[in-house]
Amino acid sequence: MTIFYPNGKPYKETDKAAKQCQNQSANYGNRGMTLEEDLNITNRYYLEEDIAVIYKKPTPVQIVNVDYPKRSAAKITEAYFRKASTTDYNGIYRGKYVDFEAKETHHETLLPLKNHAHQVIHMKRIKKHGGIGFVIIKFTHTNEVFLLDADVLIHYWEKQAAGGRKSIPKKVILKEGFLIPQKILPRIDYLRVVNDVYL
Amino acid sequence: MTIFYPNGKPYKETDKAAKQCQNQSANYGNRGMTLEEDLNITNRYYLEEDIAVIYKKPTPVQIVNVDYPKRSAAKITEAYFRKASTTDYNGIYRGKYVDFEAKETHHETLLPLKNHAHQVIHMKRIKKHGGIGFVIIKFTHTNEVFLLDADVLIHYWEKQAAGGRKSIPKKVILKEGFLIPQKILPRIDYLRVVNDVYL
Repeated sequence: MTIFYPNGKPYKETDKAAKQCQNQSANYGNRGMTLEEDLNITNRYYLEEDIAVIYKKPTPVQIVNVDYPKRSAAKITEAYFRKASTTDYNGIYRGKYVDFEAKETHHETLLPLKNHAHQVIHMKRIKKHGGIGFVIIKFTHTNEVFLLDADVLIHYWEKQAAGGRKSIPKKVILKEGFLIPQKILPRIDYLRVVNDVYL
Repeated sequence: MTIFYPNGKPYKETDKAAKQCQNQSANYGNRGMTLEEDLNITNRYYLEEDIAVIYKKPTPVQIVNVDYPKRSAAKITEAYFRKASTTDYNGIYRGKYVDFEAKETHHETLLPLKNHAHQVIHMKRIKKHGGIGFVIIKFTHTNEVFLLDADVLIHYWEKQAAGGRKSIPKKVILKEGFLIPQKILPRIDYLRVVNDVYL
């Protein structure tokens, strides 16, 4: 049986994250947690409860130099961040390929569109091949989290690339998107929305 | 239109890989190419020909220290390799979730089973949730490449974990697996086998 902290993180003795989360449990609810942290906990819950198999991809890194010290782990001493060619999250849910990006914004009335060319091209491909593709957007100001179908992002991104506005207005997200219920666990229950919207 | 080198790599003026591959074109066929390189070229072909969207995941790295020099890119100065929790490749093909691992062996009569616990657990989950899961195995001695369904790997891995032999005999792979046709392009046409076996 998995034991969960009051803040919803599963307890693992060997897990360093568990220690961090003990400290964090002094915060109430998920104040102070980033969207990425919340999604990691959510995905781990989905995995452990056998609901879905969805992972965040590792950060792409160009490794230039590695030291191999005797009797200890290989140490990367020079590396650089590379641009991702895909979205950050993918996996399988109820037999379907699921693919999404997570975006957090401090803006109150819009989601800025910037440097998303690769992700947008990737999402178009996913949609075309029959996958489920969307963006999870968190407005930090209100702590609201929305699921927005990739087609809406693609539409606004292409308008922007053709000289249009460089953001999606929040009122569009309110109208076209779906508010994701936030609970103790799963923290950001986006698969409930996926059920309603896509399945 | 994409132009391809004689060795099957697509030509891109801006692509450093193209320069490397110009040098490599002095090799004939795919001698000297690793399975991973061949699969990267194959997946890029599938992507550009709009056949499937399948990527190798980035190598998971634990980043400990990053320098931010003025007027140049952030430089990672200390990082360590982490164990992957999943297989290396996943994506979507004809609406289906596809997930696989690639293994190359110099052994002539067997594929060793070692340190694959995470991958095997992951593959079991993928199968259970309705995904297509397999291993691509290259015997470097004969240059043969096989697709073997994940269930066979899982079966042998679990026997091994219970004290059984620490490898899959090649004769099992010949019987249960499927030889993947190798061509100029796509180099390792594993989706043709996926068509026949799963779809």
